[in-house]
Amino acid sequence: MNSNDTITPFSDEYFMKQAIQEAYKAFEEDEIPVGAVIVSNNRIIARSHNLTERLNDVTAHAEMQAITSAANYLGGKYLKDCTLYVTLEPCNMCAGALAWSQITRIVYGAGDEKRGFTRFTPSPLHPRTEVVSGILEEESSELIKSFFAKKRN
Amino acid sequence: MNSNDTITPFSDEYFMKQAIQEAYKAFEEDEIPVGAVIVSNNRIIARSHNLTERLNDVTAHAEMQAITSAANYLGGKYLKDCTLYVTLEPCNMCAGALAWSQITRIVYGAGDEKRGFTRFTPSPLHPRTEVVSGILEEESSELIKSFFAKKRN
Repeated sequence: MNSNDTITPFSDEYFMKQAIQEAYKAFEEDEIPVGAVIVSNNRIIARSHNLTERLNDVTAHAEMQAITSAANYLGGKYLKDCTLYVTLEPCNMCAGALAWSQITRIVYGAGDEKRGFTRFTPSPLHPRTEVVSGILEEESSELIKSFFAKKRN
Repeated sequence: MNSNDTITPFSDEYFMKQAIQEAYKAFEEDEIPVGAVIVSNNRIIARSHNLTERLNDVTAHAEMQAITSAANYLGGKYLKDCTLYVTLEPCNMCAGALAWSQITRIVYGAGDEKRGFTRFTPSPLHPRTEVVSGILEEESSELIKSFFAKKRN
């Protein structure tokens, strides 16, 4: 599906579109453009984008900030009945954090062959976490490609 | 070696002893007792202990806080020429963060069969990071055992 088509409210595409908007913010701030939202009961409870450059901190990935922020919102550290939407396949650090959070679902856009968590055995995720991939994949990966093309110029 | 023996200054045991002191702080605050320090040029540039309960945040492991704090001290996100001393084998999340930081050395005390990063293939660490394990292992693991024994009573 093309992301410019009509999107059904509260669908995976709908929330991924919000994560992509976060990725655009990162792009504009000269950060590797990855964005995330966390949704609970059809409501976005956390929004974030990669801030590793601005914060000088390798742990400031979009997902890590979203996990901290959602736990803060919920008043508890476990993200049960929550879904993370993230534009790029989480890295191993973020997958480890998601495992600790026991999040219910993870939906990501583009795959990340070099850094993605799916390279690892055993799976770094919690065994009950459901994973969906490839949602609005093209838009997320094009944004990252544009970022690195811009960097090379 | 028993940790009550004389310890050579600036040795691995010397710095691990400092990490164990951090773990005792966690114990006193009713947190799973894991402590860490990061050392650069024989100087401790970050100290931290597990704060997941107090902060309601699964990402608040000792190592994660130490990485953020050391990068802040150094003014850059890469921990080159730094050694992390941590009382327990890092989990996968922390190993992923340590990989991004490109830290030079990791020294840990007790192994963690269930949650430790060494269970994963390929190794989650940066290929150039040196790892030493088992330093003051007994003291670290006894502290964790005492913690869980106390919890069960």
